[in-house]
Formats: sequence, C-alpha cells, structure tokens
Amino acid sequence: MIKVAIIGASGYTGAESIKILLNHPQAQLTYLTALPEECGKTSDVFPQFKGRVDLDIEPLDMNKLSKLADVVLCCLPHKVSMGFVPKLLDAGLKVIDFSADYRIKDVAVYEKYYVPHTDKGNLAKAVFGLPELFRENIKGKSLIANPGCFPTGALLAIAPLLKNNLIETKGIVVSSVTGSSGAGKNPSAKFHFPNMNENLFAYGIGTHRHMPEMEQIAQDICGKEVTMLFQPHVGPFDRGIASTVYCKPSGKADKDALTKLYADFYKGEPFVQLCSGAPAVKDVAGTNYCHVYVAVAKDFIIGFSAIDNLVKGASGQAIQNMNIIFGLDETMGLK
Amino acid sequence: MIKVAIIGASGYTGAESIKILLNHPQAQLTYLTALPEECGKTSDVFPQFKGRVDLDIEPLDMNKLSKLADVVLCCLPHKVSMGFVPKLLDAGLKVIDFSADYRIKDVAVYEKYYVPHTDKGNLAKAVFGLPELFRENIKGKSLIANPGCFPTGALLAIAPLLKNNLIETKGIVVSSVTGSSGAGKNPSAKFHFPNMNENLFAYGIGTHRHMPEMEQIAQDICGKEVTMLFQPHVGPFDRGIASTVYCKPSGKADKDALTKLYADFYKGEPFVQLCSGAPAVKDVAGTNYCHVYVAVAKDFIIGFSAIDNLVKGASGQAIQNMNIIFGLDETMGLK
Amino acid sequence: MIKVAIIGASGYTGAESIKILLNHPQAQLTYLTALPEECGKTSDVFPQFKGRVDLDIEPLDMNKLSKLADVVLCCLPHKVSMGFVPKLLDAGLKVIDFSADYRIKDVAVYEKYYVPHTDKGNLAKAVFGLPELFRENIKGKSLIANPGCFPTGALLAIAPLLKNNLIETKGIVVSSVTGSSGAGKNPSAKFHFPNMNENLFAYGIGTHRHMPEMEQIAQDICGKEVTMLFQPHVGPFDRGIASTVYCKPSGKADKDALTKLYADFYKGEPFVQLCSGAPAVKDVAGTNYCHVYVAVAKDFIIGFSAIDNLVKGASGQAIQNMNIIFGLDETMGLK
Amino acid sequence: MIKVAIIGASGYTGAESIKILLNHPQAQLTYLTALPEECGKTSDVFPQFKGRVDLDIEPLDMNKLSKLADVVLCCLPHKVSMGFVPKLLDAGLKVIDFSADYRIKDVAVYEKYYVPHTDKGNLAKAVFGLPELFRENIKGKSLIANPGCFPTGALLAIAPLLKNNLIETKGIVVSSVTGSSGAGKNPSAKFHFPNMNENLFAYGIGTHRHMPEMEQIAQDICGKEVTMLFQPHVGPFDRGIASTVYCKPSGKADKDALTKLYADFYKGEPFVQLCSGAPAVKDVAGTNYCHVYVAVAKDFIIGFSAIDNLVKGASGQAIQNMNIIFGLDETMGLK
Repeated sequence: MIKVAIIGASGYTGAESIKILLNHPQAQLTYLTALPEECGKTSDVFPQFKGRVDLDIEPLDMNKLSKLADVVLCCLPHKVSMGFVPKLLDAGLKVIDFSADYRIKDVAVYEKYYVPHTDKGNLAKAVFGLPELFRENIKGKSLIANPGCFPTGALLAIAPLLKNNLIETKGIVVSSVTGSSGAGKNPSAKFHFPNMNENLFAYGIGTHRHMPEMEQIAQDICGKEVTMLFQPHVGPFDRGIASTVYCKPSGKADKDALTKLYADFYKGEPFVQLCSGAPAVKDVAGTNYCHVYVAVAKDFIIGFSAIDNLVKGASGQAIQNMNIIFGLDETMGLK
Repeated sequence: MIKVAIIGASGYTGAESIKILLNHPQAQLTYLTALPEECGKTSDVFPQFKGRVDLDIEPLDMNKLSKLADVVLCCLPHKVSMGFVPKLLDAGLKVIDFSADYRIKDVAVYEKYYVPHTDKGNLAKAVFGLPELFRENIKGKSLIANPGCFPTGALLAIAPLLKNNLIETKGIVVSSVTGSSGAGKNPSAKFHFPNMNENLFAYGIGTHRHMPEMEQIAQDICGKEVTMLFQPHVGPFDRGIASTVYCKPSGKADKDALTKLYADFYKGEPFVQLCSGAPAVKDVAGTNYCHVYVAVAKDFIIGFSAIDNLVKGASGQAIQNMNIIFGLDETMGLK
Repeated sequence: MIKVAIIGASGYTGAESIKILLNHPQAQLTYLTALPEECGKTSDVFPQFKGRVDLDIEPLDMNKLSKLADVVLCCLPHKVSMGFVPKLLDAGLKVIDFSADYRIKDVAVYEKYYVPHTDKGNLAKAVFGLPELFRENIKGKSLIANPGCFPTGALLAIAPLLKNNLIETKGIVVSSVTGSSGAGKNPSAKFHFPNMNENLFAYGIGTHRHMPEMEQIAQDICGKEVTMLFQPHVGPFDRGIASTVYCKPSGKADKDALTKLYADFYKGEPFVQLCSGAPAVKDVAGTNYCHVYVAVAKDFIIGFSAIDNLVKGASGQAIQNMNIIFGLDETMGLK
Repeated sequence: MIKVAIIGASGYTGAESIKILLNHPQAQLTYLTALPEECGKTSDVFPQFKGRVDLDIEPLDMNKLSKLADVVLCCLPHKVSMGFVPKLLDAGLKVIDFSADYRIKDVAVYEKYYVPHTDKGNLAKAVFGLPELFRENIKGKSLIANPGCFPTGALLAIAPLLKNNLIETKGIVVSSVTGSSGAGKNPSAKFHFPNMNENLFAYGIGTHRHMPEMEQIAQDICGKEVTMLFQPHVGPFDRGIASTVYCKPSGKADKDALTKLYADFYKGEPFVQLCSGAPAVKDVAGTNYCHVYVAVAKDFIIGFSAIDNLVKGASGQAIQNMNIIFGLDETMGLK
C-alpha cells in the first residue's frame, strides 16, 4: 500500500486527487495539509466528502509528513512549490508537483513568464509527466513535473504530427476553451456566477504561461524549434478543455493516412482514444481520458482534443504518474 | 420628459433600471450615482452599455441631484436607504425605494428582521408599490416602497385566493426558486461559478426577510391574520423566480371556478398573464410580466407564478410605479 | 465474481449502471441488451465509454442471458418491465427492477396511475429496495423493486419523523426540483437545450406517479394512513434532486431534539449524511450519498434532502441492493 | 408606419424579430405566417408573448400578404426561401431574406455548398446586408441578403485589417464558439439538454456553409483572393458568438497603431464598439451590438468579436437593414 500525502489539499486539484485516491486499491491517503486558515475537517472544506474521508486537513508538519508518506502530491501554486519541494526530496519522498516550477527546463523562459527560479538543481532532474510521451523516463523517478492542463490537451492533439514531422513548426495556433474550474476556488468578479453563466470570452492574449510550456515540449517531441500561438477562452461549464490546433502541413496531407497514423501512435495507450469526429468535453468529464481527432480542411491539418482539466489535466495524470513511478498498473484507480 | 436619477446605479438593479430607461419614450436618465469606489464611465462599470450610455456614474452630490432630477430610483440596501430618503423627499423629489426600509409598516416587525428604524415619519407615508393591488394609492405619491422580488411573485400567485377568502390563512407554504442574480454583484464562495453551476439548494430557512413582508401584504389583501412559511432556494440560472404556493382551501375547491376567478381578477392587468399550465421562468425572463397559474391537487390549492426577479421583481416594477405616479401609460418602456 | 447483465442498457440509467460496475471489484458486466435499433458498440452508444467497455449492446437473447448472468439490472420502462421479469425469474436470475411495476403493492393504485398489472404474483414477492429502511428484507431476495428517484429523496428526508410519529400524516407537502437527466435520453421540445437552459418550471401537478409510491412507503414506515402532495419541478442542471418536505408537527417541535433524532436514526448508514445546513445537489452529484437536514420554522418541521437522481435515485441504489442480496459489503463499488 | 410581415415566424429568428418590432416606434407587425402545422396563437407558439402580441401566426396567403405589408422578413431556410422571394418581389414588397440564397454571388460556389440555384436573376440584384460595410448600397433596395451569423462576427472582427491590406489573405483562421440557439428550434440528440449542458465541441469541420460566404465578402472588402479556414464550435449557453480570428500580418504589426485603425474604422458606427480587452458574449447578448478587439501576439494579429447570433447575427441586423432601406434612423427599435 503506497502512502500518499497531499500538500495544498484545500483547492480543486486537491479535492480531485482525494476523490481519485478514495478508489485506488493500492494507495492510501495518509496526510492532508493546507494553509492554516484553510484547514479543518475535510468534509467541512468539501461537503462532498461527508462520510467519505476520515482525515482532517492540517497545517503542514514536515516531521509528520516524512513519517506518514511515501509520495507527495504537491498541489501548490508556482513559486510556493519550489520552496517546499527541496525539503520533500531531502526527506526521501517522491514528489509529483502540480505547479509550473519544474516543467520548463530553460530557466530564462521560466523566469520571463514566472519568477526567479530558486531550485535549479532539482529542475534539472525533474521529468515532465506526460506518460504518453515520456513514460519510460517517469519510471522510478523522484520528481515529476505534472503537466499543465492546456499543454496536456494541446500536445496530445498533435503529438503524432510533431513526431513525424508532418507540420510546419512555426506558427501553430492552439485555440482552446476551458471550463471554469480552471480558475480555481477563489471567488472573483469574472467567475461570479451571474457574470460567467451564459458567457464565453478569450483571456491571456499572447501571455498565457502554458504557451512556453507547450512550445518546449513540442520541441522535445519533434526536435525542431517550435512557435505556437496559444489562445485560451473560458466558457460556462465546470470541467473540460476542448483544444483545436490549426497546423500547416509540411507536405501533402491525407485524412485517411493521418487517421491511421494517430491510431498507430496511440495504439495501446490506455487513456487516449481516437474518435470518429470532433471530441466533446462532456464525454471525458470526470475521467482521465483524452479524446483526439484529426482532420484536413483548406490547407490545414486540424488536431482536436478534449480532456477533463482537473483529471487528465491535473489530478488524474498525477495518479497515473504515481502508478508509473511505483511500477503499478498505470490505470489503477483511474478507470 | 421626466428626469430620472438612479442612486446606487452600480449594482444589478441599477443596471436593469438603466437598460429599461434607455427605451422609455418619456423619461430621461439625467444622473447616476454610486459609492466613490464604484464610480466611473458607465460602460466601464457595465461593459454591456458601451456606446449606449453617455452619463458617467458619479459620487452623489445632493445639490446636483435636486437640480437634475424629478424622480429618484433609490437602489440602495436597507438601512443605507433610510439615511438618504428623507433628504431626497425634502428636496422635493419623488422617490421609488428598492430597499426594505419603507415596505413593512409595523416597526417592531421591521426591527426584528432588520435594524432600528430611523425614519418612521416617512414610513407611515410610503405606499407599497405593487400596482396590481394598490394602483390607486400609488398615483401622485412621493414615496413608493418598491416590493421585494419574492413577495411580488408569491402575492400575485395567490392574491385572488386571499381577496376572496378561499384559503386558510394560517400555514400557507411559499416554496420558491430564484436565479442567482438575486445574490447581487459581489463575488462570494457560494456564487462562485464552479460552486453554483449545476447546483441548487435551500437557504434562509425560517429567517428570510421577505417572509414578514409577504405576510403583511397578504393580511392587507384579505383583512385577516396570515402566517406564511416562506422557503427560498437558489438555482443555476441568471434570472427569474418560480414560486409554488401551497394553500389549504377554506371550503370546496374547484379548478374551473378558480381559473375563472383568476381570469376575472387579472382581467385588464397589462403585466399579469394567466397561463394554461405551470409557468416557466424563461418565458418571463427579461420582461416585466408575471405568469400565474392555479391548480387543485390532493386537498390543496396551488398557486404558481414566474417573474424576472430583476424586472417585475425590482427595476421594471419601479418604472411601472414611476409611470403611475406621473400619470403616464403604465406600460410605457416596459412592453 | 458476480455476473451482471443490464437489460435496457441504452438509456441514462443503463449508462450509469455500466459506469459504476466498471469499478466494482466483485461484479463483472457480462451482457448488455437494448432494443435492436439502439444496439451497437457501447462506445458508439455512449462515447464516454470509448476504450473502457469491451461488450457490445445486443438485442436480448434469453438463452444467452441465462447462461451469462447471475443478476439482471432491468432498466426498462414500466409495463415493458413486467413483460420480461417473470421470464428472468423463471430462468433463476436475481432481478433488480428499475421500473415502477413492482413498487406499488396495491394493484388498484398501480393501475390507476399506470396500466393494468400483468404480473401480480411476483408483485407480492417483490421487496422495495430502499436499504436504509428495508435492508433486512432485501438480503437474498430474488426480485427487488428499485425505488423511484423522488421517493428515495423524499422518504429519506422525513423517515425519522414518520417512524417516530412526530408529524401529521395528512397533507405532507413534498416540493422537489430535479435535474434534467430525469427526463431520459429522448429529445423533446421541453428539454431542447435552448428551452431548458436558464429555465425552471413545475410539472405533473397532482398527477406524478411517484406520489402514490411515496405515500405507500411512508405508510409502511409509520403504520398510519399518509397523504402527500408531491410537486416536482425541473431545473437547468444535469443531475440531482433537492427535496424540501413541509410537515406539520404532531406535537412540539424542537430543532436540537430533531437533529439528535436524525443523527441516531441514520447512525452507521453508509450513504446517508446529516448536514449542518440545507444540502446542495452538487455535493451529492455523481455519488450514492443522500444528504439530509431537518429544521423547524414557523409551525412547520421541514425535512431536506439531496441525492443524485441517477445514482442514489437509480443505478447506485440498484448496485447497493445487489451488494445486499449477495451478502457483499453494501458499499462495494459505490464509495 | 412601416407595415412588416414575417414569413417563417415560428422559429427563433421569427420570435426575435417579433420581439424587436414590438418596440419599434415606426414599424408595425401586420402579418405572421408559418407552415400550417406551426400556426396558432402567437402566445401558444411562444409563451413569452402572452399578452404582448395580438396577431396569430397563419398559413401564408399571398393575397393577404401583399395587402398587409410593405416589407417582408423572410425567415425561411435556404432553398425554401428562393421559392418565395420572386413572388414577394413581384408583389412589390421589399424583402429582407434570412437564408443563404441571396448571399453568395458566385452560383457555382453556392451550388457546391447548397443546392441548385433557381432564382439567379434576383441573386444578381441582392445586396449583402452588412451595414457597416455596405450601408450605401442598402438604401432603398428591394432585396437584402441578411448576412449569416458567423460571417457577421468574423468579418467585423477583421474588416479594418482587410480593408487596409494589413494581413495575408491566404490561410486566415476563424475559430468561433456559438451558443446553442444557433441550432434552431427542432429538438435533436445533440441539443438535448442532458447532452448539450456542460458540453462543448467542434462541428462542421471544413464544410460549414458560412465559410464561402465569409471568403466572398472578405474578398469584396480587400479586393484580393481570400482563403479562410472557418471552424465553428458550440457551447452550453443560449446566445452569442465569440469569434477569434488568427491572421498573419503582411508587414509589421503594432498594437497601438491597429487599435487606432479600428477606432477610426468604426468611428460613428452605432453598433460596433471597440473594447479594451477580449469581448465577452454576455455583454452583447440580447443586443444588436458587436464588440471588437484587436491584439498582436507572437507573429499574429488576432481579431476578436462578440455578437448575439439572433440579434446582430440575424433579426436585429435585419431590422437595421429595414431602417436603412426606408430612410429611418438606423438604430430605431434597436437601442
């Protein structure tokens, strides 16, 4: 039985991680922590867990943590995370980090979009936890940078194209719509129900932090320089990201050949399903699945994907990574 | 041309009032005020008004107000409102007050549910602005207490029954569901989109302030003591209140006779429509209409109504009252 | 390993049953059937099951069924169900029936609300599958009448009151709001998205078929004649039923005493949780939990409950019943 | 007073047109028609019109029509429309046609995406009714092809760029999300509430009929060949289209210069508003406004727009065109 702690358990990804782990046959929640003002009975913090979770959410005690856990899901925001991770690793714990702090290898890029990096040593050792592309690297590792939700969806939508050099790598357009749980748990004017309901709008124009993350991993996949324009939108639903990725083919594009390529590329992947039409976010909501589709239209190849931002885009993928690290069946607790 | 000022123009009822007045052929918005921190270009406060409203929202200047306006829509919360209203009346302005401060005639009841009353003199002179029941009293008056949204819906659902002594007046149950705009513009955990979406729950159990308001007016209608249990719920939609009012008949109840009674009672009413089935909130959303229906089931008479909480439940009814005060066609700007 | 077949697998309760059984450690889906025109690959009928279900949905073959299954979840509509159930029982199968056909013991009442009953013999033997009240009767039985969604919520909201004779049993008012999945899978004008979205309305006034079902079971609980007025409403969300039950106390009503009573009554119940305020449908959505609350207001006792109509109100409760029949841990696959 | 008839009044654009005309000070609804099976009291067809519309919806009688109307809003689907329009014109009526039949000048293109064209004579005379670009041509004309909803939003988002030759005209990507009212009034599995709610997906990949319409008008604007990839998505809200248009600059792109260009281009336009950030569909819902924004990101210029698909994308624009034809203030009834 793997003993799992969650740091930053009081947010949406914390709750989603708890929910998944309640059903995991070989993992056991042993310790939940949050900022002091967000602690308490888990069922008070999240009424959905009434009668389901015995553990309280407590302020972090490193001593307790190192005794109680084998692995830590670190659900902290960027910057805060890299303040804790070195201590967790020093205590001999495996860490799956949900923040951006260990995702971007190029410190200059990280620092341009975020803050000065304070843990470059561990950054170099971290593995980007997208199992469909980096499964072998994840096995047995101590620090996994759990991917961002948008990069997960966008990259799975076009990985077969990148890998096979079928598209121009300059000027890929990623247009995504996310559900509003992506905004996190803190109330705000934008996400006040009477504003967000019946609404949809673009945000983060040219500045979203998942853009450099996507580019870096896309580059790792194809071995060439990649520039992507990533444009997120948010819509009036809880969960899910639909990504539509507009690519220019580098040669001739044939729909049937591409479909076969995708089928082969994702053959055997437990959580990626090739659809026969554009994927719908509702079909993946609440699951760790990514539905993908590829089409050719007007001199473009379009890659489509749908994921649940909190599951495949965060907590589900983290558990998938945990399973891989510990040599369990990758799908355990996730089907 | 009637000159209209709105005090407290930065909230939802302010915005709704502005929207209606933009289409009013004989009224003109002349002055918009709010707390200093909520002032600015109207189209910055409400982007929906881009290109539609020239006025800015300014901090209140009584001098300016008294010069610019004939009538004031006072969209302030209770307690705050009765601090301003006496000055407005002293300045010779007509006042339509959206707060609860002038709705409840019995000071003891008001003070039990709200705060100590500081303007009892004007309270005595105020008229409860439900035109379908008190039209004649409203004409030419200076201070109208614009009804609460729930009382408007609940009372119109059963006014014909009350007026004709057809129901037991003890133990009437009013079960209502409101859209979330009723919560106002300030973000909160309950109304954060990821919490309120796909949700529905009861609140204000036994304590909602619209309960004594309903009871008082119901008593005025039937001339007997009335006790009502009012239970509000809130659901995942923007606008509208569906009220289902469960009553015990005092004698025999006959569906056809009741339908005829309702038809006669509301004959000629421009904004109350008798439906042939339970009314749907979507059919009245964005309008000043109240749809009603009456049924008999299992020893109960059930009165149903649907209104838009921001229009017939607030701003629309206020303009309807304004039209009556000034002797205009009651429906002007509201059809 | 219990072998489970689902008849009528192409509707929403079929899908929900499949989803739950995919996670059940001691049950295995062996056979899925539907009307010929609704058959096909399960992932074509429900794209959410892409990669998750190997079985196809096939036209029913009794021969195959009796070989492949130990227990049948019979997700058919009323009338159709009682055409099949006798054959299933004759084939030695355990049956959990989702229709109303075996819920109402009084044939005259059944026939008034539904159709002539054609399987009175088995009706007498069927057990009403509400485990919190009839757990002992369910064990080892062959035919379970799985309760209706509204009766489940309404009865759990007031069972402690009924059992202890604390309320007048004439004139109980059950006012409920259900999400739209209750309408089933067939498109209709009422449930067309542009009509149902941002909408809420009452229906089935005085005629809903769950009313006599509630009354019968309420009578079984308290041993007295019960009359209930049940008024359903439908709102713009997928899942969940919030029930608010207005009762007249038979004696004095004390909030603290009632809270203690509820706590004792539901002590140890794995799926009923007593809340400290009105329950919210979102907290139980996707789960087999029922959240309850009791309050005293004006001269009423109000019982509140929230369930997921497709889980505790249908498929989850069916699996709970299956677990009880076979002597498994009642919560298996449901936590 | 202009006398207005609506043919095809029983659909969503019919209802929206009725709603607008109820507030039009110089137009009067005189005749409403639909297919026989969709006729009846207007308030039975659309309960929102209870008490607001006296006219019934009747089967079309050409004789009656020609006596009762000056102008016809022809809310019929493509192909059906061009069967009626010649007769309407022969009867001396002005026609504003909501279908695609008179929008695409190149018959070959029309016939590729639709059906054989049967009224080429009038096609040549029709004017594309996008007032912001073709106002002068519309004045006094007899046949206006009212633009499609997506082309309206997409073209207004980038018209200043096209007009000034600032972008590459090959390979413009238009990525749009529409609310579900765009699907029309007929129930279907895709738009069944439990499917469409909490959902979002792409459709019409490479084949949407608004694509050639956009391209043609874009060409008219810039005088060069234009190829566009138009990808629509549909989301869980009633009204509105958010369009994000990804363009490659033909030279250097400067955000401030582009903002100034847009401000100048749309200066004085009553219904186009330049925003200071990405427009939100909720801010234009229920209005005839188009909110636009322009940004520079990576090597792209991105044009954004939001409109209400039923108002600026259909009925509102039709009334705007009607006002222009008859020499009225263009905004009459629309503010």
